[in-house]
Amino acid sequence: MTRRGLGLVAVTLGLATAAGAEAPNPLAEVARRVRSEALSRTAAFDRLVELCDGIGHRLSGSKALEAAVAWAQVRLTSDGHENVRLDPVQVPHWQRGAESAELVSPRPMALAMLGLGGSVGTPPEGVTAEVVVVSDDTALAALAPDAVKGKIVLFDHAMPAWTPERGTGYGTAVKYRVVGAVLAAKAGAVASLIRSVTAHSLRTPHTGMMRYEDGVPKIPHAALAVEDAALLARLAKSGHKPVVRLRMEARTLEPAPSHNVLAELVGRDLPREIVLLGAHLDSWDVGQGAHDDGAGVVMAMEALTVLRRLGLRPRRTVRVVLFTNEENGLAGGKAYASMHGTELHVAAIETDSGGFAPRGLAVGLPDAAAERTAVPRLGAWLRAVDPGLGFGAVEARGDGGGADISPLAKNGVPLFAYLVEESRYFDVHHTAADTVDKVDPTDLARGAAFLATVAWSFAESGPP
Amino acid sequence: MTRRGLGLVAVTLGLATAAGAEAPNPLAEVARRVRSEALSRTAAFDRLVELCDGIGHRLSGSKALEAAVAWAQVRLTSDGHENVRLDPVQVPHWQRGAESAELVSPRPMALAMLGLGGSVGTPPEGVTAEVVVVSDDTALAALAPDAVKGKIVLFDHAMPAWTPERGTGYGTAVKYRVVGAVLAAKAGAVASLIRSVTAHSLRTPHTGMMRYEDGVPKIPHAALAVEDAALLARLAKSGHKPVVRLRMEARTLEPAPSHNVLAELVGRDLPREIVLLGAHLDSWDVGQGAHDDGAGVVMAMEALTVLRRLGLRPRRTVRVVLFTNEENGLAGGKAYASMHGTELHVAAIETDSGGFAPRGLAVGLPDAAAERTAVPRLGAWLRAVDPGLGFGAVEARGDGGGADISPLAKNGVPLFAYLVEESRYFDVHHTAADTVDKVDPTDLARGAAFLATVAWSFAESGPP
Repeated sequence: MTRRGLGLVAVTLGLATAAGAEAPNPLAEVARRVRSEALSRTAAFDRLVELCDGIGHRLSGSKALEAAVAWAQVRLTSDGHENVRLDPVQVPHWQRGAESAELVSPRPMALAMLGLGGSVGTPPEGVTAEVVVVSDDTALAALAPDAVKGKIVLFDHAMPAWTPERGTGYGTAVKYRVVGAVLAAKAGAVASLIRSVTAHSLRTPHTGMMRYEDGVPKIPHAALAVEDAALLARLAKSGHKPVVRLRMEARTLEPAPSHNVLAELVGRDLPREIVLLGAHLDSWDVGQGAHDDGAGVVMAMEALTVLRRLGLRPRRTVRVVLFTNEENGLAGGKAYASMHGTELHVAAIETDSGGFAPRGLAVGLPDAAAERTAVPRLGAWLRAVDPGLGFGAVEARGDGGGADISPLAKNGVPLFAYLVEESRYFDVHHTAADTVDKVDPTDLARGAAFLATVAWSFAESGPP
Repeated sequence: MTRRGLGLVAVTLGLATAAGAEAPNPLAEVARRVRSEALSRTAAFDRLVELCDGIGHRLSGSKALEAAVAWAQVRLTSDGHENVRLDPVQVPHWQRGAESAELVSPRPMALAMLGLGGSVGTPPEGVTAEVVVVSDDTALAALAPDAVKGKIVLFDHAMPAWTPERGTGYGTAVKYRVVGAVLAAKAGAVASLIRSVTAHSLRTPHTGMMRYEDGVPKIPHAALAVEDAALLARLAKSGHKPVVRLRMEARTLEPAPSHNVLAELVGRDLPREIVLLGAHLDSWDVGQGAHDDGAGVVMAMEALTVLRRLGLRPRRTVRVVLFTNEENGLAGGKAYASMHGTELHVAAIETDSGGFAPRGLAVGLPDAAAERTAVPRLGAWLRAVDPGLGFGAVEARGDGGGADISPLAKNGVPLFAYLVEESRYFDVHHTAADTVDKVDPTDLARGAAFLATVAWSFAESGPP
């Protein structure tokens, strides 16, 4: 390259910089207003405290969940939103009841445990049996026939710690929580245990959803704290044959009435075209469901309120949907798709990864090739928004969506997941430690600003 | 400076480097042998598993503590140590019994709690009262007279997170655990609560020692998990008057018989001059007492064994002392000083900060000026040792010592504390989460190597 060439490059760069500084960026301008409004308010965190401290955890079938439904309806109405309504949904009704696990031999000791959602209970006297420890299903299959017959299987499968490169190891590790009872029962076990699905523990057991399979005996299934699973694994490895007594009063009652809660900012131009912003109201029956998913609920509510307060009414309708029963059945998501799936949804966005700092969006499209080409467009859109928000939330990924909105995939709706700084999410996920003190009010306000900007832009111009 | 001058500097530096590389460093050579031996063995961790999994937690007065005493005696004997013996000690006998704290109003909810060691119990029906939340004693003193009369005081005093500059905030935050009941009772309260003394919590309450004062009513005193203290603080701040029911069966029985366990590597030249290497066998009655202080116990045992296996018999005697009752009474440390304080101790080193990576030593001398001049000498000694150990454990500080060896101060014994990487120690300290899975076997072996080197050198040449 000659000196003249270098000079041209410099001129070109100079022009580009000047143009960038001068060019109108309406998206960034909206983002700037939204950010300013959201960060001037404490409403999102105040609401989270109302929900978490005032109502607490709220499992499907509980009075607390219906209290949360009523609370959301009142708050969305008092914020002046349009078309606030409750859609009735029948939800599964599982009750934990009293439960315990104790090491009987080689020495008596209480174990830290939580039964898994949907598990059957034990007889009143409990199930007492030797524990056979395996790391995964391959190890289980490699045992001698009848090796676990009449025994308890412990899946001591460790979830790796979060890293920036690999993210969380949740997707893989959760397998034994979901299908552990089926795997163990097929091998003849009388109960099954898992190591809690987390990489960090302070003797904190994690609950969550599990499944049975038709034709396979239903055996009790529970999670031990990481520490207790590790203890049983050490005892078994050193030749002791640990014996555990598991007692669970868990039972499944008749389905109970619940509700999805909807509210809208009606579009000024195409009111029947919808951008859905979703989160779930229900939680597990421990802790406060603060990150999962109280944070999503209050961010979605606040995003709608910020747009309304700023007079930012987009061409299409923004509809907030607070789903019921995400955790153990997805009845809310299924009912919504069944009742509203034929309405024209131009996009559905779910926030269900906690109230941490914004990182970006993931997109999910029915057509894999279309999804691949959508990711860079989404990235460009995030980089256009970011000068206004200033969060550096510019990560664009594929495989987007969320449990509640997943039933809309069959209607061809483009699905989006709100991505957050997730390094600590699974430390508290589904535990007694998922409490409001773990949520940073500023992160929550930032999330509301980010989601308001996404909802406005998608409703104004369609998703990128 | 002339060119010739620069050349001279270069020559001088070159000579210094060459001399450093060639000079014999007998300390580093011993350290190298000790390191090689300790890291080739798994004995320290294996022993920790025996103690923690086989016996578990071991509060003063429990059968478990006497099982640990017997275990230590057997292991020290089988390792071939000299003068293995049990010194009888009467220890306080506090029993927790059943206990609970529940939020009664504004809505019923179980709180995560642990009674504090030495607390009196409540009547069988419990103590039910409004909770007044204060951040510290200044805030308590600033309340109107009778503001807490008949009520429960919660000291919601937050321990700051560990930083490299400030270290842990334990020393300050622990105040309300120790004297909170006295402060609250003087103000007329019927019970007192603290926020657990930790900077990180997953709904994990922390127990620990508390004190009463003659002439001040003894009221029940318990720790809430950080999350539950924060909840009560939020409720009180928002104008709710939280009411809590505290039930504790805690009681103090007659003192029980226990033992310090001693073992020696008798000095080849001055056998009556002693370097004491101490840790404590007892623990709180939750978790496994793995870092606190099972790790110290097995590192001290292993340090003595490594020296014996290598034939490194120093001029003076190295005496390992596994103290009883460090946690709630210090009866072991006091009894040792009473029985052995007149023997000539040239140094006493305590390891009671967990089995983390080695960082260095702190020295404590009766004379503050002497201590100040001892710190740089200690630093030089650590830097001389480090080429052999290679741990980078070169931190030298003042204010050294340890609870168990502190009664020897009156005999003028130079006291030393083993310093470790302590950033996570107070996450598990005095909790159900202080379990063997939190201890890294390599860190433990490194600690044993470091302590063996310290003990050998101090016994060979005296402390620096």
